[in-house]
Amino acid sequence: MPIPTGKMERPAATFYDIVIVGAGPVGLMLSTLLARLGYKIKHIDNRAEPTPRGRADGIQPRSMDLLQNMGLMAPIMTHDPAKVYEVAFWEPSPDGSDSIVKTGAWPSCPSFLQARYPFTTLLHQGLIERVFIDDLAKSGVSVQRPWTIKDFKTTGEHPEHPVEVLLEREDGLFQQKLYAKYLFSGEGARSGIRQALGIPVTYKDPISYVWAVMDGVVQTDFPSIKMKCTIHSNRGSIMVIPRENNMVRLYVRIASSADPDFDPRKGATEEEVQQIAKEILRPYSITWENVDWFSVYPIGQGIAANYTLDQRVFLGGDACHTHSPKAGQGMNTAFLDAQNLAWKIHAVESGFASREILKTYETERKAVAEDLLSFDNKYAKLFSQKAPPASAMGTSGSGSKTDGSNTEHVNDFVETFKASCAFTSGYGVKYGPNQINWSGLSESSSSIPGSELLCPRNVKLQPGNLMMTADVTRVADANVVALEQEIPENGAFRIYIFAGNPSLPTTATALQDLATYSMAKGSYLAEYLRDDIESVSYHERHNPHSRHFTFCTILAAQHGDVDPVKMLPPLLARYRDHVYADDVDDRRLSRGRFAAHTKLGVQDLADGGVVVVVRPDGYVGASVCLKPGRATVDALNLYFSGFCAKPLGCA
Amino acid sequence: MPIPTGKMERPAATFYDIVIVGAGPVGLMLSTLLARLGYKIKHIDNRAEPTPRGRADGIQPRSMDLLQNMGLMAPIMTHDPAKVYEVAFWEPSPDGSDSIVKTGAWPSCPSFLQARYPFTTLLHQGLIERVFIDDLAKSGVSVQRPWTIKDFKTTGEHPEHPVEVLLEREDGLFQQKLYAKYLFSGEGARSGIRQALGIPVTYKDPISYVWAVMDGVVQTDFPSIKMKCTIHSNRGSIMVIPRENNMVRLYVRIASSADPDFDPRKGATEEEVQQIAKEILRPYSITWENVDWFSVYPIGQGIAANYTLDQRVFLGGDACHTHSPKAGQGMNTAFLDAQNLAWKIHAVESGFASREILKTYETERKAVAEDLLSFDNKYAKLFSQKAPPASAMGTSGSGSKTDGSNTEHVNDFVETFKASCAFTSGYGVKYGPNQINWSGLSESSSSIPGSELLCPRNVKLQPGNLMMTADVTRVADANVVALEQEIPENGAFRIYIFAGNPSLPTTATALQDLATYSMAKGSYLAEYLRDDIESVSYHERHNPHSRHFTFCTILAAQHGDVDPVKMLPPLLARYRDHVYADDVDDRRLSRGRFAAHTKLGVQDLADGGVVVVVRPDGYVGASVCLKPGRATVDALNLYFSGFCAKPLGCA
Repeated sequence: MPIPTGKMERPAATFYDIVIVGAGPVGLMLSTLLARLGYKIKHIDNRAEPTPRGRADGIQPRSMDLLQNMGLMAPIMTHDPAKVYEVAFWEPSPDGSDSIVKTGAWPSCPSFLQARYPFTTLLHQGLIERVFIDDLAKSGVSVQRPWTIKDFKTTGEHPEHPVEVLLEREDGLFQQKLYAKYLFSGEGARSGIRQALGIPVTYKDPISYVWAVMDGVVQTDFPSIKMKCTIHSNRGSIMVIPRENNMVRLYVRIASSADPDFDPRKGATEEEVQQIAKEILRPYSITWENVDWFSVYPIGQGIAANYTLDQRVFLGGDACHTHSPKAGQGMNTAFLDAQNLAWKIHAVESGFASREILKTYETERKAVAEDLLSFDNKYAKLFSQKAPPASAMGTSGSGSKTDGSNTEHVNDFVETFKASCAFTSGYGVKYGPNQINWSGLSESSSSIPGSELLCPRNVKLQPGNLMMTADVTRVADANVVALEQEIPENGAFRIYIFAGNPSLPTTATALQDLATYSMAKGSYLAEYLRDDIESVSYHERHNPHSRHFTFCTILAAQHGDVDPVKMLPPLLARYRDHVYADDVDDRRLSRGRFAAHTKLGVQDLADGGVVVVVRPDGYVGASVCLKPGRATVDALNLYFSGFCAKPLGCA
Repeated sequence: MPIPTGKMERPAATFYDIVIVGAGPVGLMLSTLLARLGYKIKHIDNRAEPTPRGRADGIQPRSMDLLQNMGLMAPIMTHDPAKVYEVAFWEPSPDGSDSIVKTGAWPSCPSFLQARYPFTTLLHQGLIERVFIDDLAKSGVSVQRPWTIKDFKTTGEHPEHPVEVLLEREDGLFQQKLYAKYLFSGEGARSGIRQALGIPVTYKDPISYVWAVMDGVVQTDFPSIKMKCTIHSNRGSIMVIPRENNMVRLYVRIASSADPDFDPRKGATEEEVQQIAKEILRPYSITWENVDWFSVYPIGQGIAANYTLDQRVFLGGDACHTHSPKAGQGMNTAFLDAQNLAWKIHAVESGFASREILKTYETERKAVAEDLLSFDNKYAKLFSQKAPPASAMGTSGSGSKTDGSNTEHVNDFVETFKASCAFTSGYGVKYGPNQINWSGLSESSSSIPGSELLCPRNVKLQPGNLMMTADVTRVADANVVALEQEIPENGAFRIYIFAGNPSLPTTATALQDLATYSMAKGSYLAEYLRDDIESVSYHERHNPHSRHFTFCTILAAQHGDVDPVKMLPPLLARYRDHVYADDVDDRRLSRGRFAAHTKLGVQDLADGGVVVVVRPDGYVGASVCLKPGRATVDALNLYFSGFCAKPLGCA
C-alpha cells in the first residue's frame, strides 16, 4: 500500500517557538535551556540515534561551571569520566638515542585561573548527549529522528511565527510543515541552513589538515598514558588524551595542505595509525585490546561570515566555526554559543528586552570564534617549542625558581602558556562592550543621573568578564557554598550586592534606598514584577518578585553575626537563601577576611559596597557603587534601559 | 480454591550463604556489601515496601565516608538532601521577656576532626533505602516482601549450612525452608530473633521517654529553621532538624519516666505538638503547610547482652541498641555494625581468616553501643547547659579569644563539646586492642622477629583508629585525590606504604625488601595469592596479586619527579593507579610539604617510612616501620598470623 507523502501535517502541532535542527552539543544545550523555560520546541536530527562513539569528548572547566549550574554535572560524573589536570610534554631524547623523554608537565588549568573545577572532563559525546536527552524528557521534549529539514523561508503569513519550515523523515515518506518564531541550525560543519542562506565560510589559516583519531583500550608502559600529552619524536607527533573505561584517544596528523603532495582525501588504516603510534612511542610499547572508534577526516579553520541574517534564523556550533580538534574547543564553544543565544531569545520573548539584543549573539560569539581560530595557531606554535621546566612556569607547588638563564624565552613562553590556559579552560573568554556589557558613556551623556556610579574603577570584575568564583557562607543554613553557583541558569539576571560592613549606618541606609528605589515606579524591578506576585509560594527561592531578577546580598561579617531580618530591608531579606557572609578564608589571599569583597576589589569597606549585575549566562553586565540615596538605582536603570523593552528611569 | 501452605519449598533455592531479616539500614548495608562480594543472599522484610516516610534520616560524616567508598554518595546526593554544618542554641531571653534568643552556634563537625565531608546529610530513610535496593539489583538481589521469619535452629544436617530457617509470607499462605551459613537480624528494636535466642536487653539509663516527632513543610520567621537547633524556652524544649524538600523535623519530648505521672503510652495529637512548638518558638511564628510524618513513641536506652551466641546467628542495628533519637546515631551505628560484620564474614568464608575473628564483631560493636548510650546522657547534659560564645570554642574562623573569665566552665564545656562532635560525627569511634587491632606483645614474646618494628611510637595512627584523611597527588594522572577513599570497600586489606624520600638509597632497598619478602613462601601475601594470578586483567587496579590485599605507595616527593617504574619494585609498581606523591599542601599544617607523612607522624624522613595496615572497613590494624631487610615483613606476618587461617612467618 502506497504511503502518502506530504500529508502528515497535523494542525495542532503547526506552531512552535523554535525549530532546532541537529542534536549535537549546540542543539541539545539550546533545546534544554529553552525547554526548561517552557518554550515549545521541535527538535530534529537526521541520525537515527545519539552519537554511538567517538567525536568530541572534552568538557572544559568553564563548560563544567555551566553544566553544574544546570544541575547536569552530577549525571555526567556518574559515568566516571577521566579528569585531566596536567598536560605532559615528550620530546626526542637529547642524547640522540632515538627515544623520547618527558620534558615537562603543566597544569591544564593553573590555580591563578581560580577555576571551580580545574580539570578537563573526558567522556564520550554520546553519553553527554544522553544526559541532555534525559533532561529534555523531563520538560516533555524529545528529539524527532531521523528527520531532516527540506526547506525554510520567512513569510508574513503568521507574523508571530514568521519562519515557515518544511521537515521530512529521512526515508522521504513523511513531511511536516510548521511555523516557528525561530529556526536554529546545529547541523555541524556542513550546515544546509547556512548554505541555503548563502552565508560564506572564510578561512583564517589557509592550511587545512587531515587528522586520524582513534579511541581504544591499550596496554602500555608509557608513563603518561593517563595524562593529556603531546609527543614529538623524530618519527612524527601525536597527542594522547585519556578517556573513561580505560580508553585512550590518539590524534595523529597525517597530512597538511602545506605538504608538497597534499591530498585532502588521504586515508590511513587503523593498523597504519597504530604502527605510527608504536614508532613514535619507542622505547615504550603499546598494544590495542580493542578500537572503539577510528576516523580520518580533513579539517580546516573555517568561520561563517554571519551567525544570523535576520535574528530569526540562527547558526551555532560547528555550523559557524571549525578548527583543529587539538585544543578540545569544539563542544565547549558550541555549549557557550547555545547558552548565549538561549537567554537572549528568552529575554526578548518574555517581554524583558528589545529585539535588538539578538544582534549581540553574533557579535559576541563570532568574536570568540575568531579568537579561537587565532589561538589555534598560537597553540600549535606553543606545542612545537621546547617547554621550559615546570618550575620556571610559576605554576608548580615545588617553589623552586628559574635559574635566570634564558629568561626571555621563558617569559615569552609563560605568557603564551598562561593565555592558552585561560583560553582552553574557557575562563579567558570575555565579551566586548555593547548594550549589555556596560561600556561607559559618551562625554555628552555623562551627566545622566547615576552614571557616575557605574563601573567603579576599583572593581576588578569588568563588564564582559565571567563572574568570579568565591566561597561564602550561606547565612540561613551555615553551608559554605560557591557564590557563583547559587543561582541556577534560569534566564534571570543576578544582582549581587556586595554590601560591605553591615554594622555601618551608611550600609543600612544604602541597602534600604536600593530596595526603596528599585520598587519605585519606572525602575528596572518595579517595571518587571511578576503578575502573580501576590500568590508566589513562600518557598520560592530565586524569583519571588520578578522572573527577571534574583538578588543576593553578601555582607562583610561573620555568618553568626548576621541577622538578615534586622540588617536588610524586607525586599532583600525575602531572599532568605541568598544572604551570605563573606567569612570563608581564601588561601590565595594574604588578607584572610572578607575574601570575596577583596577579590572584587572592595578593599576599603568604609567606602561602601558594590552592586554587580550579572547576566543570566554568568558574565558581568555592569558594576555600580552602592551608596545611600537614589543614585545607585538610577545607575541600574541607566544600565537596563540600554536594552530593556520598557522605558526605565526617573518616574 | 484453597492455596496449599508449606509446600512452596523449591529445592534449587534451599541453600544460602546468609539469610537477612529486615531491610532497614543495617540489613541493607550488610546485604549490599555481601552481594557485591558474590554471596548468595535471601533478604526478607515484613513490610510491603520500603519506608514510605519519616524515621531516621541523618547521615553522619563517617557514614558518608563509607557510602562514598561504596560509590553510593552520589545517588544519595541527587536527592538534594539538607546539609547541616552547624548546631544553633536558643535559650530563654535573659531579659525576662518570655521570648527566646540565640546564644550560640557551633560547627557540627569542627575542622579539627579533619572530616572529608564535615556535615550531616538529612534525607528521608526511604530514599536512602532505595539507593541500596537499586544497588542490590545490580548484584541480582532483591528484598522478598512481605515475608517474615517463623523459626530457625542450628542443626547438624548440613554442616556447611548449619542454620535452618523457616520463612513465611505475611499472609501465612506460603512458607519456605532453607539452610544458611549465617542468619542476621536487622529486625529493629523488637527483634524476634533476639527474643528467640533469649538474649536480654539491659538498660543503662533507667529512665525512658516518650517522644513525638513530626516532619512537615512549614512557614516561619524563626531564623535558624535551616540549621539543627536545640531550643529551650520557659514553655518546653524542642529540637529542629532541616530536611529535603523544604521539610523540617521537630522532636518534642512529651513524657519521661522521671515524671510523677509517667505513662509510657502517653499520646499527643499533631495539633497538640504543633501548639507546643508554637509556644516554644515565641516571639517567632510557625505554621504548617503539610505534615509528612507524625509519630509518638516511647524509647529507652537499651542494649542487648549479646550480638551473637554462636557466630552463626547475628544481631545488628536497633536489634542490639536503642537510644534517644536526639544525637541522630541510630542509622549510623547500624551502618557501621553491618560494615564491621560484612568484612569479617567474608574474611572467614573466603578462607583468609580464622572463624575466631567473628567474635570481634560483638566486642567491637557492643563497646561502641555502650559508648553511645553513655554519650547519650552526656549529650543531654550538654544541651541543658548554657553554651559559651562560639569564639570561646576555638572553632570559629573569627580568631577572637575568650576573655579569660569563667575559664573552667568554658574548658569543661569545650572538652565535652569536642568529645561530642567526635562521637556524633563518627570520627571518634575507635576499637580496642584485639587480634586484628595490634595490641603489643607480652614481654615473653617480644623477641619474635619483626616485633620491634610493630606499632612505632611516633606514628599517630594507632591501631583501632580510623585511617586519617589526606589529600595526595595520584602520579599516573596527576589528579589530586582523597587517599583514604582510593581503595573501594571490597573486603581487602589496604596496605599503605608511606615510603618517605624515594631518592634515599635506604628507601629503595626497604621497598625492594618489602616486595621480596612479601612474596617469600609463608608470607602473608605469598600465602594468599589469587589462583588466577597468571590471567589477571592488565586493567585490574586493586587486586592484581591477591583478593585480600591492595598496596598503595605514598612518596615524599613532587609528583612530577616520581617515576614508579624506576623507583619502585615491580610488585608495587604494578599498582599503577596506587602510587601517590605527598605534595599537596594542607592548610592546617605549618610545614607545607609532605603533609600526609607529617600527619602520620613521620617527621624525619631519614628514619625511613611506615607501612600502615588498614582493615577492609578503614580502621588501622597495625603500623610497621619500613626498614631494609626482612624485619618489616616479619612484623607484617606476625600481625596477620594473629587471625589468618593459614600459618604465616619464617619459611
